[in-house]
Amino acid sequence: MPLITIDGPQINDTEIKRKLVKEMTEAAVEAYKLPVESIVVLIKETQPENVSVGGQLISDRKV
Amino acid sequence: MPLITIDGPQINDTEIKRKLVKEMTEAAVEAYKLPVESIVVLIKETQPENVSVGGQLISDRKV
Amino acid sequence: MPLITIDGPQINDTEIKRKLVKEMTEAAVEAYKLPVESIVVLIKETQPENVSVGGQLISDRKV
Amino acid sequence: MPLITIDGPQINDTEIKRKLVKEMTEAAVEAYKLPVESIVVLIKETQPENVSVGGQLISDRKV
Amino acid sequence: MPLITIDGPQINDTEIKRKLVKEMTEAAVEAYKLPVESIVVLIKETQPENVSVGGQLISDRKV
Amino acid sequence: MPLITIDGPQINDTEIKRKLVKEMTEAAVEAYKLPVESIVVLIKETQPENVSVGGQLISDRKV
Repeated sequence: MPLITIDGPQINDTEIKRKLVKEMTEAAVEAYKLPVESIVVLIKETQPENVSVGGQLISDRKV
Repeated sequence: MPLITIDGPQINDTEIKRKLVKEMTEAAVEAYKLPVESIVVLIKETQPENVSVGGQLISDRKV
Repeated sequence: MPLITIDGPQINDTEIKRKLVKEMTEAAVEAYKLPVESIVVLIKETQPENVSVGGQLISDRKV
Repeated sequence: MPLITIDGPQINDTEIKRKLVKEMTEAAVEAYKLPVESIVVLIKETQPENVSVGGQLISDRKV
Repeated sequence: MPLITIDGPQINDTEIKRKLVKEMTEAAVEAYKLPVESIVVLIKETQPENVSVGGQLISDRKV
Repeated sequence: MPLITIDGPQINDTEIKRKLVKEMTEAAVEAYKLPVESIVVLIKETQPENVSVGGQLISDRKV
């Protein structure tokens, strides 16, 4: 603890995930003044048909 | 924000999802008096072997 | 289960909460075809200095 | 309600899941003095490339 | 990680919390075969007017 | 959406919260290539008697 949970679309490139968790962890270490080993980041990937913004499924949006 | 997260069984019919997120969004707009674009709904689908009620896995229930 | 979690600003009027959970529950009963007693709704109230949209704390917004 | 959510690595053996939810449910019944049917347990399984500890993805750890 | 989150009513006695987190942690150590130090338990206490079961706020129940 | 939820100890200085949500938001914008307005950060503050690591409440730790 602290725990950072990220709910977002799928990220296919692991290198992007590496950078994301590193930056999130660094920001948390600075804010909480806690050791880096105590910071956990959870990436939760959601499909577009399971998310809505403004009452519309993301999968229904005209791109 | 506001954010509505729904943990439930799988919904196979996207039309049902459309109706569900629409109704949830409308209820939240009315309660919070916030613009519809600010309301996010996340549908999280859980398999029956990953949920228990009363200490029993849903997948172990005699149907 | 199903479980509906709502993260949003504080709601001071319990009557609004009653209506919100009732509507959310009805929408879930219809979508999942499950008994009303199985539907749980959790309202989580967050203070404006603990939420950001677009990188800005809600408490810092010029109203 | 009460609801217990477990975020952890994948568990392949259903028998282990049965035991886990049973023990979690029993602990909650004792703590909250509530009926066993009111206790819900949700197991959420996360892949190693979606979790970091100390800023490093679990999938990047030298085993 | 693993992380156990418990959403439930308020627990006033810290001794009960001690026992609850201990038992939850032990169950997780056995299930995941991971070191005890890796197990985090988060207790989230919810007021009765912020929880509904079956569409009714817990605070509205006739006791 | 994306949504970043941070479960951690209390942060008393709002300036630290401003910096934390800004950095988290920037990291998410870069990773997801989505507009900054779509990024929501939720800070959830937990008291030491409601968190355990390794089966021990944080509030019981000898400092």
